[in-house]
Amino acid sequence: MNPRIDVITIAVDNLERSLAFYRDGLGLKTEGIIATEFGGDETNAASAVVFFELEGGLKLALYPRSELAKDAGIAVVPAGSSGFSIGHLVADKSKVDELLERARAVGAPISGGPRDRPWGIYSGYFRDPDGHLWEIIWNNKADREG
Amino acid sequence: MNPRIDVITIAVDNLERSLAFYRDGLGLKTEGIIATEFGGDETNAASAVVFFELEGGLKLALYPRSELAKDAGIAVVPAGSSGFSIGHLVADKSKVDELLERARAVGAPISGGPRDRPWGIYSGYFRDPDGHLWEIIWNNKADREG
Repeated sequence: MNPRIDVITIAVDNLERSLAFYRDGLGLKTEGIIATEFGGDETNAASAVVFFELEGGLKLALYPRSELAKDAGIAVVPAGSSGFSIGHLVADKSKVDELLERARAVGAPISGGPRDRPWGIYSGYFRDPDGHLWEIIWNNKADREG
Repeated sequence: MNPRIDVITIAVDNLERSLAFYRDGLGLKTEGIIATEFGGDETNAASAVVFFELEGGLKLALYPRSELAKDAGIAVVPAGSSGFSIGHLVADKSKVDELLERARAVGAPISGGPRDRPWGIYSGYFRDPDGHLWEIIWNNKADREG
């Protein structure tokens, strides 16, 4: 397999609510809800989705929990069971605090910091409206601009 | 927030098992388990982790479920509750089948296809040893090499 990920699709309970959180709350740009032409049914997933185009060609997709389950042929996963974390690097330590504060201001619970970790980073987490984890990270060995 | 994701960390029950699946089974390159110097304790996460360097500067990290929970200050999430999907584009339709077959051969359950979706892609899913979903996608409108 080529070492590449093209899309990260996160399951959401309410597309409008998550769109508002990521677009209006965090400021990510998007065309909004697209591909509304296939409504789906009991076994076929509906197509409506939100895409955010990220740096490096990666896309972040918001997709209803029920439709991801149908599309992937799995049972519906309850909200809040977030077995993963999305890591976002920022350019200095104060920006970790700033971004977590911004997330908190638009309703995201903060946990796990912000604090120094023994392995040399400063980070903390927020959870999106469905409980998905984002870790905001400052790592003075990384050369990201943030 | 800048439109960027730097790391995708997936929670695993067994670091060795997941390392074997991704490195030996799927062929992704890695230095293996690193950062073993901080063992952690009941409240502080251990640092041992596996990184795969992907195209575009993105990293895929494998991290023990228990340690992610401690680091993020959340309850431990049971395995199999995969509220997200990682999308991987390939260059032609037959490569979807090939890659899913390779994943199946190393123990990954296949679901949700492979089949044509009404919105113009051909795709199917496999689940990694912890149940995390990967969707292998052929989209004739995308210009990925796979």
